[in-house]
Amino acid sequence: MKALVFQGPGKTSWQEVPDPGIKDASDAVVRVDSVTICGTDLHIIKGDVPEVAPGTVLGHEAVGEVVEVGSEVRTVRPGDRVLVSCISACGRCRFCRENHYGQCREGGGWVLGHLIDGTQAEFVRVPFADLSVHPLPGSVESDDAVLLADIFPTAYEVGVLNGRVSPGDTVVVVGAGPIGLATVAAARLYTPGKIIAVDLAESRLAAARSVGADATVGAGEEPEELVSDLTDGLGADVVVEAVGVPEAFETCTRMVRPGGRVANVGVHGKPASLHLEDLWIKDVTITTGLVDTYSTPLLLRMMAAGRLPSAELVTHHFKLEQMEEAYDVFSRAADTGALKVVLGGPRHDVVTLPA
Amino acid sequence: MKALVFQGPGKTSWQEVPDPGIKDASDAVVRVDSVTICGTDLHIIKGDVPEVAPGTVLGHEAVGEVVEVGSEVRTVRPGDRVLVSCISACGRCRFCRENHYGQCREGGGWVLGHLIDGTQAEFVRVPFADLSVHPLPGSVESDDAVLLADIFPTAYEVGVLNGRVSPGDTVVVVGAGPIGLATVAAARLYTPGKIIAVDLAESRLAAARSVGADATVGAGEEPEELVSDLTDGLGADVVVEAVGVPEAFETCTRMVRPGGRVANVGVHGKPASLHLEDLWIKDVTITTGLVDTYSTPLLLRMMAAGRLPSAELVTHHFKLEQMEEAYDVFSRAADTGALKVVLGGPRHDVVTLPA
Repeated sequence: MKALVFQGPGKTSWQEVPDPGIKDASDAVVRVDSVTICGTDLHIIKGDVPEVAPGTVLGHEAVGEVVEVGSEVRTVRPGDRVLVSCISACGRCRFCRENHYGQCREGGGWVLGHLIDGTQAEFVRVPFADLSVHPLPGSVESDDAVLLADIFPTAYEVGVLNGRVSPGDTVVVVGAGPIGLATVAAARLYTPGKIIAVDLAESRLAAARSVGADATVGAGEEPEELVSDLTDGLGADVVVEAVGVPEAFETCTRMVRPGGRVANVGVHGKPASLHLEDLWIKDVTITTGLVDTYSTPLLLRMMAAGRLPSAELVTHHFKLEQMEEAYDVFSRAADTGALKVVLGGPRHDVVTLPA
Repeated sequence: MKALVFQGPGKTSWQEVPDPGIKDASDAVVRVDSVTICGTDLHIIKGDVPEVAPGTVLGHEAVGEVVEVGSEVRTVRPGDRVLVSCISACGRCRFCRENHYGQCREGGGWVLGHLIDGTQAEFVRVPFADLSVHPLPGSVESDDAVLLADIFPTAYEVGVLNGRVSPGDTVVVVGAGPIGLATVAAARLYTPGKIIAVDLAESRLAAARSVGADATVGAGEEPEELVSDLTDGLGADVVVEAVGVPEAFETCTRMVRPGGRVANVGVHGKPASLHLEDLWIKDVTITTGLVDTYSTPLLLRMMAAGRLPSAELVTHHFKLEQMEEAYDVFSRAADTGALKVVLGGPRHDVVTLPA
């Protein structure tokens, strides 16, 4: 089959590799119908995630059809249309038993496209299939479902739930890329009073407004000033960091009110300064986290019910074999305006099963 | 009356000042019978808390007898023996209504010995007396009660509750001064699996063992190594920072397990490095906070029931007029072994009222 292979920092190739097969009795092999690219894939290519070995197939988000299952798999069977989650879960370790699937100690967690071959390929082997793929109702389109592999559960669990977004809250989302936009949309489920999105790119702020931001702060504007004005000088109830650079994180900690929450969602490569000389007295809660995906079944129902946006987040479509072109467009987002780019998709949407 | 007056960085004097009187209808004036010195007072004298104006009487912890009340005061009357809390609370602002008394916006919060004259004096005016002093049952000695003015509620709310100490947890307390020791004792209320205290002074580690630490790590020892060994390499469930220096905070963030909590209790004067390049993926919760003292009535009942230690925390007694000597002993804790120093006390314990 063809797959996108990481060849070491700065290098990837769309090339022929052996087809995956069942290795463990809990595996499923899925034919990839829709797949997308994550900002984290770009971090890997830059060399920021050193545990990814050259030769690994990248990608951790997909929709496809199960073609083969191991003898222990109970929840899916060949022919099922499924979402391949970015998180695999053994379901039995201490962390899995507490819903902390992202921290699975027995070979799950974030492994696809990281520690084992991923989804940017014609086929993918998914370990622990019972808890790591989700059967899809026929009513959920592939373009929508693929957003539930990573960005919506990450935005919801690591941004909205960790940040404890509540009715009436002033919520600031710093960074309006795909994760930031999904955070704006997911925050609305809790009816906050106001959502303010911060980004340098006007196209992303327009997308933020379209998914529910009430106000936006762009290049050359001062988010701290606007937030202060909107909150009688107190600061925001919840601030979500969806960029992954120290300056953005530090801005977040300056915008939060006494008793407020800063939820870090961004993938960071460097330390930030934590201004404890100001914060020690301020009753602030700061959270970090990798997604666990315990919310994926819920979000799937919300998506099927039309309560989550998707078209606003997908800017480009490609055929699977256009992988390198898709990477080029996605990695030049400042010029191309790319948010999520989806490869494959409609070609296979005919293979829907009864719900 | 006599009082300890802050005279600007590096300078205090025990001197004659005007007696306080009722200024607002919600005030009480309390005769100070027992008073203590807090590490925060030393920070103020060093100049670390610049909002304290020269001329301010220091101190925010006391036990005494109400001698006068304003016309609106309902919960205490002259003659009542009371605990003067470090936090005053209007009870009506947005923050007070949510139990966030420490963040009171209407003249409460931490004001005694900070923004208005404090307790290191023969008398103190306490604003918002209804929510800022607590009538004491006769069964609670002054030496015990004075520990409830600040250190026990701080240790309990900002350390134990913010850190969500739970049965079976491995809890590390970094810093075994009075607040760290109170944290060890308060953590035991939740039956953790193991409490590890970290400090450079052997006398403080001995005190930590006497109030319930299961293991201690002293000068020249490696806390991260011990915690790793005790937790199968995972890290501690809860780590409490009770020192207030960047290095201690950073050690805390290295010792916490995935999904664990770091509760900062220390008063900081400088920023720390937050190693987001390691922590972003680790599901860590970091909290900061000034005490709110919503738990003071509960802790008072626990103290009366003998469920909190006190003698282990009080190392020195002085007469009130020995204030300068007490400061000298407390500020040289490394040499003197001082933990809490109590001034006054037994002299007035005869003035107990029926419970």
